[in-house]
Amino acid sequence: MDNKDFNEELNKRAEYCGEVVKRFLPEKEGYASRVCEAMEYSVLAGGKRLRPVLMLETYNLFCREEDSASLEALEHFMAAIEMIHTYSLVHDDLPAMDNDEYRRGKLTTWKRYGEGMGVLAGDGLLNLAFETIAGALNKAYNPLKIELTGRCIRAAGILSEKAGYLGMIGGQCADLEAEGRETPADIDELLYIHEHKTACLIEAALMVGGILGGAGADEIEKLERIGSNVGLAFQIRDDILDVTGNSKELGKNVGSDAANGKATYVSINGLEASDKEVQRLSEEAEKLLETFPGEKGFIRDLIASLILRTK
Amino acid sequence: MDNKDFNEELNKRAEYCGEVVKRFLPEKEGYASRVCEAMEYSVLAGGKRLRPVLMLETYNLFCREEDSASLEALEHFMAAIEMIHTYSLVHDDLPAMDNDEYRRGKLTTWKRYGEGMGVLAGDGLLNLAFETIAGALNKAYNPLKIELTGRCIRAAGILSEKAGYLGMIGGQCADLEAEGRETPADIDELLYIHEHKTACLIEAALMVGGILGGAGADEIEKLERIGSNVGLAFQIRDDILDVTGNSKELGKNVGSDAANGKATYVSINGLEASDKEVQRLSEEAEKLLETFPGEKGFIRDLIASLILRTK
Repeated sequence: MDNKDFNEELNKRAEYCGEVVKRFLPEKEGYASRVCEAMEYSVLAGGKRLRPVLMLETYNLFCREEDSASLEALEHFMAAIEMIHTYSLVHDDLPAMDNDEYRRGKLTTWKRYGEGMGVLAGDGLLNLAFETIAGALNKAYNPLKIELTGRCIRAAGILSEKAGYLGMIGGQCADLEAEGRETPADIDELLYIHEHKTACLIEAALMVGGILGGAGADEIEKLERIGSNVGLAFQIRDDILDVTGNSKELGKNVGSDAANGKATYVSINGLEASDKEVQRLSEEAEKLLETFPGEKGFIRDLIASLILRTK
Repeated sequence: MDNKDFNEELNKRAEYCGEVVKRFLPEKEGYASRVCEAMEYSVLAGGKRLRPVLMLETYNLFCREEDSASLEALEHFMAAIEMIHTYSLVHDDLPAMDNDEYRRGKLTTWKRYGEGMGVLAGDGLLNLAFETIAGALNKAYNPLKIELTGRCIRAAGILSEKAGYLGMIGGQCADLEAEGRETPADIDELLYIHEHKTACLIEAALMVGGILGGAGADEIEKLERIGSNVGLAFQIRDDILDVTGNSKELGKNVGSDAANGKATYVSINGLEASDKEVQRLSEEAEKLLETFPGEKGFIRDLIASLILRTK
């Protein structure tokens, strides 16, 4: 697929994923309208909808026939993972954490709605993610046709675990701890942070898509490894761009990690080894991907675009 | 049951519920140990374990025979509701919300572990609640014996909804909004806050206990009304005690609501009408309770102790 076609396709899918999440957002009325407004503001502030797009594409790899029941369940999970990703950004931006006032050129949620509402909007989104998953389970439940229920249950287990203390929250904890210290993180700690703070939700996206699409246990394991490689390569690439990138193209200051005395993959291992590691992770992911059935063109291009991006 | 026996029984059950929650708390090791420590600190800081006790007692009303599978599922939900209650306190205490430094005589989580870790510990507990529910679903799932799965799915839907923007988070939003304004809340808004911030999780405790114990749809509806009455009466009683109570017995200053210019049921309707309303709510709850089968002595005493307490 050439670059222009790929970007068009990606935009189309991201837009569809945005529409899906929107469908699950609450009405803004009554005494709770303010928190609902803040939740909506946070979700609609933009973003590439990367996690639901990856989930959808993985589902399509394995589910080769139209199946409206599993597709409906998938949409619930697509919305849920985007809500979880969004809540993590909303809380990350709080004064108690990164103290960011802008994200993607817009005021952050706490800056726009106040700090207390920032806390509540994040809580509301995390909770709504699980309400949405419970909705998928309720719809899928059918005593005479129980397989989809089983898949949804496995998917709920994986998504909640990858978002929790063994996953994303664990990574945020380690990141917060490292930032509060004088000594920068060493390579093990840095890898832990990258793998948990970023890679875990990518893994969950691929695994949930696979499970709902009917992938087997071996395939789910491969999807987890692909997700881990892609997430880690994405973060190392981030570290590389912080040194070599173009501020204008990136939309943020280059060299900010070094200026903040923050350990990065590049500061620890150097540029050349970092480039090599991205290459290695990416090749391994691609090899694993090739073992799957189905049309892999778009998802291959998507993964490559994440890893090899210049912005 | 006389007062001494009742208190002994209540303590025994609260202790059992505390043990149950503890079983689902994470190991404190590795790079995420700090957030796990803060989560444990928050849960073990004490508390009456009211919600899991109510859930357990309601379950026992309906499940008259030993059934280890549904009891195991129940324990997951008992732990989950206590985690949700605890996270709501941890986030409520944050500087961005109530800015409390002590709770039950101990430092609040953010004061002990820092503000960022306070945010993360709350997130971690809310997420863990749903991991724990997903665990119940995974264990209950059995294609040949699907009824318990169905019950767990309904319970997950109710607990997540009662904790979310239509429930507890909605109440917190309205409370935060009212506190940020010059004009105190009117009676509709105050009732909304009490019903959502407090009553919704009490409703969920009773409903989930009923569902897992095998209660029918009519009975679940009654349990919701009992929970609503108990939660509301509990809060009005709180407002009454703020005027008539004994500071030493209550462990907090009497008259603090009036001093803060906060609307309460008493400030709007007066003491006499407040007492009458508590009486009315309590009698209605008791009447509904009497329509159920089973030994109701303890749960009746428990509800009475909540509503008629002097501290």
